[in-house]
Amino acid sequence: MTILECFYFSIASYTMIYFNNVTIIGVGLIGGSLAKVLKAKNLAGRITGAGRSRETLEQALRLGVIDSMGQGSIHAVEKADLVVLASPVGAFENIVLEIGPHLKAGAILTDVGSVKGALIKIIENAIPPNTHYVPAHPIAGREKTGVAEATDTLFERRRCIITPTARTDRAALAAVRELWVAAGADVSIMDAELHDKIFAAVSHLPHVAAFAMMSAVAELNTGTEDYLQFSGAGFRDFTRIAASSPEMWRDICLMNKSNLVEMIDRYLHSLNQLKRDIEAGDGNRLEKHLKQASDVRKGLD
Amino acid sequence: MTILECFYFSIASYTMIYFNNVTIIGVGLIGGSLAKVLKAKNLAGRITGAGRSRETLEQALRLGVIDSMGQGSIHAVEKADLVVLASPVGAFENIVLEIGPHLKAGAILTDVGSVKGALIKIIENAIPPNTHYVPAHPIAGREKTGVAEATDTLFERRRCIITPTARTDRAALAAVRELWVAAGADVSIMDAELHDKIFAAVSHLPHVAAFAMMSAVAELNTGTEDYLQFSGAGFRDFTRIAASSPEMWRDICLMNKSNLVEMIDRYLHSLNQLKRDIEAGDGNRLEKHLKQASDVRKGLD
Repeated sequence: MTILECFYFSIASYTMIYFNNVTIIGVGLIGGSLAKVLKAKNLAGRITGAGRSRETLEQALRLGVIDSMGQGSIHAVEKADLVVLASPVGAFENIVLEIGPHLKAGAILTDVGSVKGALIKIIENAIPPNTHYVPAHPIAGREKTGVAEATDTLFERRRCIITPTARTDRAALAAVRELWVAAGADVSIMDAELHDKIFAAVSHLPHVAAFAMMSAVAELNTGTEDYLQFSGAGFRDFTRIAASSPEMWRDICLMNKSNLVEMIDRYLHSLNQLKRDIEAGDGNRLEKHLKQASDVRKGLD
Repeated sequence: MTILECFYFSIASYTMIYFNNVTIIGVGLIGGSLAKVLKAKNLAGRITGAGRSRETLEQALRLGVIDSMGQGSIHAVEKADLVVLASPVGAFENIVLEIGPHLKAGAILTDVGSVKGALIKIIENAIPPNTHYVPAHPIAGREKTGVAEATDTLFERRRCIITPTARTDRAALAAVRELWVAAGADVSIMDAELHDKIFAAVSHLPHVAAFAMMSAVAELNTGTEDYLQFSGAGFRDFTRIAASSPEMWRDICLMNKSNLVEMIDRYLHSLNQLKRDIEAGDGNRLEKHLKQASDVRKGLD
């Protein structure tokens, strides 16, 4: 299955969606921003926040991002027409095992996880057959985290990828798609397996590479010289994503293990190729390899 | 030798520098911007441009960046009080072999190369003893290139590192330092060997890593799916420096070979460590390694 343009939603997308009760589990940057979209676009009645950190939920309540705090995830989802999983993906399994039996009939469960294949298996096994899971991934990661950074414009003109499965309900898929369209996102429908391959390449590998770069350079930075004070804009751009949440990236790396390891191997291969060109002093070969990379990058923006 | 704050220049820096004749060899972004600084601050009489591309020189002349075009480098340097080497560093050896015998007595030769140790050996061997070489490296690399992008503000609040040698004339050093201070740069004096170690880490390695990343991901991009259309801000930031000039980076890599290969090895080690954590599914170890990197990056800006 390749990337599909879902023309069959062209009528559905004019239908107004509305959820009486929405529960967002994990009210951080992404969950909080989605809550703000729901409020700004009048797509929800009551928004309940849930999650492990009471402090975060109290902050979200104070900021008006949510209307109430769930007393435990179970209670928080019982009335929900829409449940959004927005915690770090590693927490999803325990959450769905806990809330699954308490979802009401017809409830839509969706998520914002950066990995899809492994999560789909876990979630579809854990929820009752009369509920509807729609896997989604908004591409709006920023290095900033937390509900205080949440904004209803976070998803505007950003991509959101929905990866329906054989089991996904058409109407639920249409509703979740409409929610992301309302958020201003450019929605694609894609197979989960392809999604995970693509994001191993364009997102998960660059994060691993940036974390590794910081480690390699930081080790040098322990002498009397502060190497990092000489880092220019290039280095700072290159390593910016290494400031991202270690917990979140731990989970993503482990949940997309095989695709990511394959990409790390491809990257190691490219690095070793350049290293060999440099060691051999082979200027022609080195320039050829650098030029191939540069030409692709120039085509990007 | 460590990074020195050159207090002994505190008086000299109030002296007005002025060069009757300046020759800039390589009138691209850096050379052109320095020419604009010389004009904007009234530090030069006549600025002559030289270099291999007649087209570039004609453009620089049309833009008013230079006052005349040298008919060959030799002729262009004969009257010069200050000669600035601003070509790709790989071209320096042939240039100094050609111009060396034609420099006038007392002329100051400086450069803007990103590598210092190997260049110093080449240049000090090629110029007459009655001329003065002052090695310099302004940290103002941008992905954009060419004289059309040149601006007299390019070096403002950017670092410029000067790496004098045992042979460097004090007065010439003071003059070049003052030139960069006039450009608005934050000037450091440093040993060339330390410079090359630091820049292998904070600049040359990230460039190699970005070029390698583009190669690794571009290889995937040959099927029916355009992976790169899904790349987010993180990927674009991460790979921006891969759009830099392959020729320039070929030369820098080869001229800082041993430091750079050492840094590539350190980087390969860090990448392999994260890969092992991921393959082993060792969440604790992986999070620990990611957190160490993230903490250093957060301290950076």
